[in-house]
Amino acid sequence: MPMNVAADQLRQYVERAERLIEERKGLNDDLKDVFAEAKSQGFDVPTIKWVIRERAVERQKREEQNALRETYAVQLGLAF
Amino acid sequence: MPMNVAADQLRQYVERAERLIEERKGLNDDLKDVFAEAKSQGFDVPTIKWVIRERAVERQKREEQNALRETYAVQLGLAF
Amino acid sequence: MPMNVAADQLRQYVERAERLIEERKGLNDDLKDVFAEAKSQGFDVPTIKWVIRERAVERQKREEQNALRETYAVQLGLAF
Amino acid sequence: MPMNVAADQLRQYVERAERLIEERKGLNDDLKDVFAEAKSQGFDVPTIKWVIRERAVERQKREEQNALRETYAVQLGLAF
Repeated sequence: MPMNVAADQLRQYVERAERLIEERKGLNDDLKDVFAEAKSQGFDVPTIKWVIRERAVERQKREEQNALRETYAVQLGLAF
Repeated sequence: MPMNVAADQLRQYVERAERLIEERKGLNDDLKDVFAEAKSQGFDVPTIKWVIRERAVERQKREEQNALRETYAVQLGLAF
Repeated sequence: MPMNVAADQLRQYVERAERLIEERKGLNDDLKDVFAEAKSQGFDVPTIKWVIRERAVERQKREEQNALRETYAVQLGLAF
Repeated sequence: MPMNVAADQLRQYVERAERLIEERKGLNDDLKDVFAEAKSQGFDVPTIKWVIRERAVERQKREEQNALRETYAVQLGLAF
């Protein structure tokens, strides 16, 4: 592949990736805004993040996971 | 704040955050596609990522950074 | 500070940091071994890691955290 | 495996892992101290970390990496 063609192709990949990275930065800022707003309304952000993680887990898998956690917690005398 | 109002508000924050997280997943997949395509065309992805990091640093700062790196490398006998 | 003194000092800091980083790598390998052994004995590693995270949280704080999680889960109709 | 045996075994794995995690915390604190001391002596910590990363890369690989970086930088008109 001639040098200048490779350079153009490289530039396209770099610029496409940069646009996506820029967009992602915007989304992360929006996400920060949502959490800041929730916090200002008295909600607990770590708990909101916990709820989001739990909702992302399919219900049956979540119940199996919690049953196993309870078993281990009981075996170790961990009140939770 | 009455319980049901708080629940509605909480749900809105959770769902807004979930939409942004979902969008971010899509962007990350697109970014993976760009790098996979570049790789299939023979480009080195770690080096593309290095170029993107360097381009994100303002030129003068980048030159100061590289001058300092060179000084430390010479002091430690690190060929680079 | 004369150049050679700075170079010696720089080398000392770099080598001290490298030794600590090396030690940390060793610890991470040991940690992997513990989890691999537990897995081979039929234990669930993600749940062990969850127990370790929970045990690292002071009891009262953990109970407050779980109470808040339950409140949010109920408000969002999340069975857990 | 009888319940109490499993509980003892589980406790051993959890406590072994906790000791390693505790040790790792200590090492991370020591590492922070080294960098804080270097900084107090006028050294640039990000550049020290860069030198450590470069020294961890085998010489020939590092030279190949830098040659490729230079090629991409030239193709993109990136002064570095």
